[in-house]
Amino acid sequence: MIAPRYHVLGIGNALVDVIAHAEEDLLLAHGMRKGGMALVDEAQAEAIYAAMGPATEISGGSAANTLVGVASLGAPAAFIGKVKADGLGRAFAHDIRAAGVNFVTPAAADGAATGRSLILVTPDGERTMNTYLGAAQHLRPDDVPPELVSDSAITYLESYLWDPEDAKAAFLKAAGLAHEAGRLVALSLSDAFCVDRFRPEFLDLIRSRTVDLTFANEAEVKSLYQTADFDSAVAGLRDDAALGIVTRSEKGCLIVTREETHAVPAAPIARFVDATGAGDLFAAGFLFGLARGCELATAAEMGALCAAEVIQHLGARPECSLRTLAEQSGYAV
Amino acid sequence: MIAPRYHVLGIGNALVDVIAHAEEDLLLAHGMRKGGMALVDEAQAEAIYAAMGPATEISGGSAANTLVGVASLGAPAAFIGKVKADGLGRAFAHDIRAAGVNFVTPAAADGAATGRSLILVTPDGERTMNTYLGAAQHLRPDDVPPELVSDSAITYLESYLWDPEDAKAAFLKAAGLAHEAGRLVALSLSDAFCVDRFRPEFLDLIRSRTVDLTFANEAEVKSLYQTADFDSAVAGLRDDAALGIVTRSEKGCLIVTREETHAVPAAPIARFVDATGAGDLFAAGFLFGLARGCELATAAEMGALCAAEVIQHLGARPECSLRTLAEQSGYAV
Repeated sequence: MIAPRYHVLGIGNALVDVIAHAEEDLLLAHGMRKGGMALVDEAQAEAIYAAMGPATEISGGSAANTLVGVASLGAPAAFIGKVKADGLGRAFAHDIRAAGVNFVTPAAADGAATGRSLILVTPDGERTMNTYLGAAQHLRPDDVPPELVSDSAITYLESYLWDPEDAKAAFLKAAGLAHEAGRLVALSLSDAFCVDRFRPEFLDLIRSRTVDLTFANEAEVKSLYQTADFDSAVAGLRDDAALGIVTRSEKGCLIVTREETHAVPAAPIARFVDATGAGDLFAAGFLFGLARGCELATAAEMGALCAAEVIQHLGARPECSLRTLAEQSGYAV
Repeated sequence: MIAPRYHVLGIGNALVDVIAHAEEDLLLAHGMRKGGMALVDEAQAEAIYAAMGPATEISGGSAANTLVGVASLGAPAAFIGKVKADGLGRAFAHDIRAAGVNFVTPAAADGAATGRSLILVTPDGERTMNTYLGAAQHLRPDDVPPELVSDSAITYLESYLWDPEDAKAAFLKAAGLAHEAGRLVALSLSDAFCVDRFRPEFLDLIRSRTVDLTFANEAEVKSLYQTADFDSAVAGLRDDAALGIVTRSEKGCLIVTREETHAVPAAPIARFVDATGAGDLFAAGFLFGLARGCELATAAEMGALCAAEVIQHLGARPECSLRTLAEQSGYAV
């Protein structure tokens, strides 16, 4: 097997984040579930936007953020996701390419506008997301170039893709192609309510080894195994997944296989500003480490380092070179 | 004379800032003058954008930033400026209204796109701007509602308006209306090269008392009086202006009239991130203080406080309530 050209290929919703500071009252007034992600239609998105404070627009999208992180660490990275040829779509394409990610999915000429995630950051730094998928949900199997998948060491998929039928088909096509080429497939569980909607399907993806690596945070793994007990949930993941990665915010993370368990602490931070992107950037560091052949615990440390960078500023993409940061922290990148 | 409804009305270019971190090399490669503002056409704007790194989009515009600052301090504020009915125009209108500023100028249905300022922030925190005015340059005298001007204690104009002929006419109309109503007119010199292009006209505006307050930074006041000697430049402004306000970055500011001089130090900061908006927010605090009837030195201190907030993060608009900040610093707002 020849060495793959890309360390990681991400497939996900191409979104622009529209971020504003907000008081808890605003969340209550709109019946939002704090800390979660809700899919909204265009009319709801308009209503929330009208109620939001002054906003900052920064390219986002869960898997897209991860791939920008992988590129920032210095590894070849690619991304597949759908935008429309409008202002936000142009910004998304510019930003991900400027970050060094190979992004080739053609923009839709018509139809729904480029998707956006309206993100409300409360004074405690927690982020609550309302996402209008727009063009992103029209990602189709045709948008997945087979050679791109087979030329990537790891194909990384976000669970958010599981909502639209076409995107789900694209997801499964990519997972199949990756395994045919002898590559790894990784899945991020993305959101506890997303897990709740598709639990049997996600469990099947994991148990059937359609995915090799499963990323989850505490709420997601509990939702997956329908338990309030963290240890039981982790035990479930250990049994089912080839490799399970559970992130726990300031409590660090657990890496579990049937043979091994590694508990890795969170990296220190000077100030906590905005949780947006923490999980995405953890995945970036971990996937990078894994693709470079690091030990699992080392890969997790690199994930923690990347997550720590992104929670110290607004927005879900790194504001400095993660490669430099990793080097300064003593990692051989 | 009845009390005016608005403390400050701003008239300026309605722009969205597209901000990216950049190395000095990029400035050199594109022949940019570091720290300055250059007007660019659409093709130049495209070329610079293509060369820029991942960007953050935040509503901007010099006078618009100032008015957002005035509103954040808790005073009634209004703004006049031209956008197009496109994505960026929508974001501009949303953001300035969400900040509490009365913004009523109708968006253009066709013609040039909403203007944008491509801002490159170098590692030293300096910002270099390339502005495509787009729709902003089509601001016309008809866009200035006479009752809005007469109902504002201070009408604040940015020199950048002096470039397009229609905007210049709108500027003069507003200044005339303000004085007819017994209100004050303030001018920000905006940029040293802007001063260089229109020196005789700006001197005439100041000497004829078409404007009462003149804001300038060190480079601008030197350019206005064509001297490298700061003291001579300030002496010139003292002679010519009813009230001169000269900002000097970390050296604080000077407030000069023929009778008085006040040197006010800069406010302390924890970390310097991005100079964008420093002058705009200084003007916000100063105008707010003046409209509230504070002493000149106190108004300058409030200006320094607001400038200190905005240079500690990316973007030219405050990220916290300036009213709260001012209260915490002991000012009665």
